[in-house]
Amino acid sequence: MELTPLLNKQLKTPLYMQLYQYIKKEIETGGISPGTLLPPIRHLCEHLQLSKNTVESAYQQLTAEGYTESMPRICIKVLPLEKTLMPPSQLKVHTNREPKETEQSSAATYDFKYGDIDLSHFPFKTWRRCLQNALDSEDHDLFLYGDHKGDFGLRSELAKYLFQARGVRCVPEQIVICSGTQNAVGLLCQLLSMNGRLVAAENPGYDGVRSVFLNHGCAIQPIGLETDGINLSQLAASRAKLVYITPSHQFPYGMVLPIQKRLKLLEWASRENVYIIEDDYDSEFRYQGRPIPSLKALDKKENVIYLGTFSKSFLPAARLSYIVLPSKLADEFQEKLGRYSQSASPIIQKAMFLFMKEGFFERHIRKMKKVYQEKHKTLISAIKTHFGNDMEIIGEKAGLHILMKTGRRARDLIHKAEKLGVKVYQVSDFWLEPHESSSSIVMAGFGGLSAAEIEEGISILRKAWLSSSKQER
Amino acid sequence: MELTPLLNKQLKTPLYMQLYQYIKKEIETGGISPGTLLPPIRHLCEHLQLSKNTVESAYQQLTAEGYTESMPRICIKVLPLEKTLMPPSQLKVHTNREPKETEQSSAATYDFKYGDIDLSHFPFKTWRRCLQNALDSEDHDLFLYGDHKGDFGLRSELAKYLFQARGVRCVPEQIVICSGTQNAVGLLCQLLSMNGRLVAAENPGYDGVRSVFLNHGCAIQPIGLETDGINLSQLAASRAKLVYITPSHQFPYGMVLPIQKRLKLLEWASRENVYIIEDDYDSEFRYQGRPIPSLKALDKKENVIYLGTFSKSFLPAARLSYIVLPSKLADEFQEKLGRYSQSASPIIQKAMFLFMKEGFFERHIRKMKKVYQEKHKTLISAIKTHFGNDMEIIGEKAGLHILMKTGRRARDLIHKAEKLGVKVYQVSDFWLEPHESSSSIVMAGFGGLSAAEIEEGISILRKAWLSSSKQER
Repeated sequence: MELTPLLNKQLKTPLYMQLYQYIKKEIETGGISPGTLLPPIRHLCEHLQLSKNTVESAYQQLTAEGYTESMPRICIKVLPLEKTLMPPSQLKVHTNREPKETEQSSAATYDFKYGDIDLSHFPFKTWRRCLQNALDSEDHDLFLYGDHKGDFGLRSELAKYLFQARGVRCVPEQIVICSGTQNAVGLLCQLLSMNGRLVAAENPGYDGVRSVFLNHGCAIQPIGLETDGINLSQLAASRAKLVYITPSHQFPYGMVLPIQKRLKLLEWASRENVYIIEDDYDSEFRYQGRPIPSLKALDKKENVIYLGTFSKSFLPAARLSYIVLPSKLADEFQEKLGRYSQSASPIIQKAMFLFMKEGFFERHIRKMKKVYQEKHKTLISAIKTHFGNDMEIIGEKAGLHILMKTGRRARDLIHKAEKLGVKVYQVSDFWLEPHESSSSIVMAGFGGLSAAEIEEGISILRKAWLSSSKQER
Repeated sequence: MELTPLLNKQLKTPLYMQLYQYIKKEIETGGISPGTLLPPIRHLCEHLQLSKNTVESAYQQLTAEGYTESMPRICIKVLPLEKTLMPPSQLKVHTNREPKETEQSSAATYDFKYGDIDLSHFPFKTWRRCLQNALDSEDHDLFLYGDHKGDFGLRSELAKYLFQARGVRCVPEQIVICSGTQNAVGLLCQLLSMNGRLVAAENPGYDGVRSVFLNHGCAIQPIGLETDGINLSQLAASRAKLVYITPSHQFPYGMVLPIQKRLKLLEWASRENVYIIEDDYDSEFRYQGRPIPSLKALDKKENVIYLGTFSKSFLPAARLSYIVLPSKLADEFQEKLGRYSQSASPIIQKAMFLFMKEGFFERHIRKMKKVYQEKHKTLISAIKTHFGNDMEIIGEKAGLHILMKTGRRARDLIHKAEKLGVKVYQVSDFWLEPHESSSSIVMAGFGGLSAAEIEEGISILRKAWLSSSKQER
């Protein structure tokens, strides 16, 4: 440990006494705890530019008064105090909200938490090897700040992948690596000078991104959904020059925007000079029908800003996401945000590059499609078995979550499920304003649970919900 | 690879023909390059939900026309085209600014680049082991999103470290881990709803942070420097409610704000209800005099928001920085930014936690202090030897860079040095507006060079500058 007291040579109090008083006070107020070894005299002299004599005198005084004791090899150990002294008042923080969520979710036996992924099929060994290889690199740049837009190799691999998997044609220069979707949207708000401006967004929609817009001083114009996705006439009426949308798998409802609507949307955007942020967050996992190319793939006039993430398709802990910018915006990015350092670690980026380059990513996606499809099938069939027609399932074609709709209050259902150790989630935050639809819907993510856990979880839900509904009657 | 064409059953053109046309066009325009293996029929059927027959017919047509050839084990390989076809027009991006910097700096033999650190003393083995241990963890949360404020263990270690090294008293709940200083300042702009508001900042000062403020819609009020740091009367006159300052080691001038001025600044901030962002970016490395506690350490009224980074003290590639929030702002952070995911990887955070917990960080800092002090001494004495009184050295008490001031134009000096393979840097960007002082100053970072390289680099500078100054006469 080191100590950094404020010592003043001008004062009448000698330096050794100032040092002694500082340490004594820290011991009394809990800043230095019992059992701590004070820094060796030599270190403290060097650190504080004091003479050996000064530090020695301060230490001797402390030991003489019983605050510390001398140990073999010139160590000074802090002793426990008789009475407990109050810690300094500024150390109190009201952290009522912080530990809550973690505690609750760890208590649940079956947690249908959205955002959890399947770790049992994750190729830990391969990923470790990629990280190891990245760390073994001779390339010194890997240990500095790295390219401000992200590792060029990774961006090249992404360009290939996005073309093959999503029909997106782009060059690495259009890609910016970010550390998560919210980080990406924050950069876009800055790039597009969004503060004080209007953003149209699906309602319900992803609250995590909406809060980024709001925190950047944007106003949100909520746009309703139809059975086939965003309401285009409402959108046109909004006069917004930026739209945030999840066309491949609407969040949270799960519908896929059909091709006709995509083309109409693009035509409108081009005519009205609107930018569309397409959040393609989990398009990898589709279980029915033919994949539709991303909006960006159809975007001839360059109105679409494409967002993707490795959080669903790979690992949330990589904290890697990406933006594909229209080429005119790629230049503006350079101009306006060119001085920003990259926020994702070059080491993780390099490992991800190796993982993609060697073909592991493609293989992983292919495997996970099957794994999630299996889980998804299990979930749907368990719900049908246990609830029959009492439960409507929403958004069952794709992704890592579904919505369940009943005629009953979601809050009660969530509470009852939790009592039996099953966590399902409310959806009300996805609406910009409180909305009646949300009150009877619960959300269930299934990525992190095994098929057996899913079955067991749903059967417990039946117990929790059906038995109590009988009591209610 | 996968392909995601837009296929339409309603069209008269049969699906196999649509698929064939799509692939053919991609080959012609360079979207699919020669040598590529097309996806196995089975995969493509599954991916596009097509019959085996459809895909087979499309592939046969391509092979019949010489675009592809069949390979053993049902692989289809793309063949090179006779004539080079133009890539699609939207793939062109004007990237004139991107590769420039990298090319230039890699060409230099001695690059006095600010931001480079000493990697030859970096404990790669230990750091690898910490990363390995983090990856071996059984804790599943480590592979998901992690705590939104950052790993609790790391925040606890930081709280201890900041108390010992910088006199900052805080609890982990006040600390937010970020991925770099600019990321941190971006979050603060959102937390404090800074858009449209005034920020006072040292002028000259760190342009990287200034651009974050500007991109968040802030106006910058430049505050001049005196020989002992920021001009307090100018600051008071600015009426700004937020100040960004580098008191421990002014960037780029290097002066240390003396204790009297610190106390005055804090008193003013408390009286006027101003938040001070203290950027303590490289306070670890001081070579003269006694360390002064951070502003935050003296901040009884909680007006100081403290920023720190691991980029100088540890490794830029960790992309880890941190904010210490006053406790009232810690609550507001939870309220306003509580839905944000953490942007630093939980894996890197855990490794950093282990590195600190086992005492390696403290040992590393102690070692690096000596290493940089040695380099710094070499640099100063080389400049004195080669330039004598012709060169003024600015900011020589601390940090990883110095400024050199001559009577001559910095632009010419930089150009002449570069011709002989030595890179030094201009400082004009640090001023908000063009300023005459900047025209005769060059910046030299020394963290990334060895003592021998520093000596050699400076002796080349003499050749470059003195010989040419003779020619000029």
